[in-house]
Amino acid sequence: RITELAEQHFREGSRSETPLLAGKKVVVTAGPTRERIDPVRYLSNFSSGKMGYAMAEAASRLGAETVLVSGPVGLQVPKGIRTVQVESAAEMLDAVLAEYGTADVVIKAAAVADYRPKTVQSGKMKKQEGDSVLELERTADILKTLGEQKDGQCLIGFAAETDRVAEYARGKLERKNLDYIIANDVTAPTGVFGSDTNVVTLFGRDGTEVTFPATEKKALAMKLLRRIFGGEQDDR
Amino acid sequence: RITELAEQHFREGSRSETPLLAGKKVVVTAGPTRERIDPVRYLSNFSSGKMGYAMAEAASRLGAETVLVSGPVGLQVPKGIRTVQVESAAEMLDAVLAEYGTADVVIKAAAVADYRPKTVQSGKMKKQEGDSVLELERTADILKTLGEQKDGQCLIGFAAETDRVAEYARGKLERKNLDYIIANDVTAPTGVFGSDTNVVTLFGRDGTEVTFPATEKKALAMKLLRRIFGGEQDDR
Repeated sequence: RITELAEQHFREGSRSETPLLAGKKVVVTAGPTRERIDPVRYLSNFSSGKMGYAMAEAASRLGAETVLVSGPVGLQVPKGIRTVQVESAAEMLDAVLAEYGTADVVIKAAAVADYRPKTVQSGKMKKQEGDSVLELERTADILKTLGEQKDGQCLIGFAAETDRVAEYARGKLERKNLDYIIANDVTAPTGVFGSDTNVVTLFGRDGTEVTFPATEKKALAMKLLRRIFGGEQDDR
Repeated sequence: RITELAEQHFREGSRSETPLLAGKKVVVTAGPTRERIDPVRYLSNFSSGKMGYAMAEAASRLGAETVLVSGPVGLQVPKGIRTVQVESAAEMLDAVLAEYGTADVVIKAAAVADYRPKTVQSGKMKKQEGDSVLELERTADILKTLGEQKDGQCLIGFAAETDRVAEYARGKLERKNLDYIIANDVTAPTGVFGSDTNVVTLFGRDGTEVTFPATEKKALAMKLLRRIFGGEQDDR
């Protein structure tokens, strides 16, 4: 009910004033990546893609030309948003870089695999008795790459942490040359992965530090974007 | 169009005669399993669950009391079928064994992980520089376990092979004490994983060997069950 009222407010808001992100191009990455082991097996993670999709929808509703680069998720592709479907971290990097030069804002909500199998088997592996070992190598660090190649874009990352949230989040903000980082405490009882609600703290290069109480992800996405781009001090 | 006519035929058939599987309890496993690496990462495979769900629906339409033991898939739970949701191979084994004693037929359509991480990290792993290694151990072989504990049940397995399909399928039939095995040639251009169609060969302990041309999975599931339990020689 509150969510409906909030959404109505945002819709009306964006009708009666110049949309906050009008004329801006926003690129959002969402979902997990899958790293193939062989033609049938893969490594992945539990990211549902909901937060990224919510960020893309919010950006679009705020008037941005929005591009969603999405890993494999079970979500409906949002109407009116150009969506690029990718599978692996390498494909996601390529897709984001292809949009980066013309982007004003990049929001990296995807849970990109850190590691991938060192070699991909071309045929289905036959089972063997006993233990086995899967050799892994690091994938390209998409966010770091974007930070290094930054040319005026506003770069927004996410951090899922289990402890020392502020310290790790601020460290990542610096290390990857981000403008904002949105930190999830994944130990929070409200949960993160696959859930519709999320409790986060927004840290900014400019010193911003705002904690948003648990709320539905779509409403949270709108609050985050309005806080970042509207300069609103009211984070209720 | 042909599929619609076939389905209509099957529906009418099951109304006008005693359903083929009336009074029987059929347990079907479907989908992939996920084997956790840490709270956010897992190993899995591309099984969509469509063939298993189609087998369960066909069994139910043929009058069987049907239990579907399903790994994580993006499919609608079929109406009127008791569904047990599981994640890992170990959970799937437990769920199937809980139904096995009272089952008449078990159809193992799930693509159960052969390997799982040897240890599951309780916290999210921090990234490190450079390569890594994931130590794996074998999961319990569900089909083999069922074959060893068989007490009158009809046991039906699947085999996804890339070459020497008949040889591997017959070997698996013997080794795992199955009654029937349904072999997919996963190199077939019609595809298998995630697709709606499937071309298969049915091998039986009784010498049965019937190849079914590519057809929609729901229609194929019905044909397979009618061939196995109806003794029909007409496999069109």
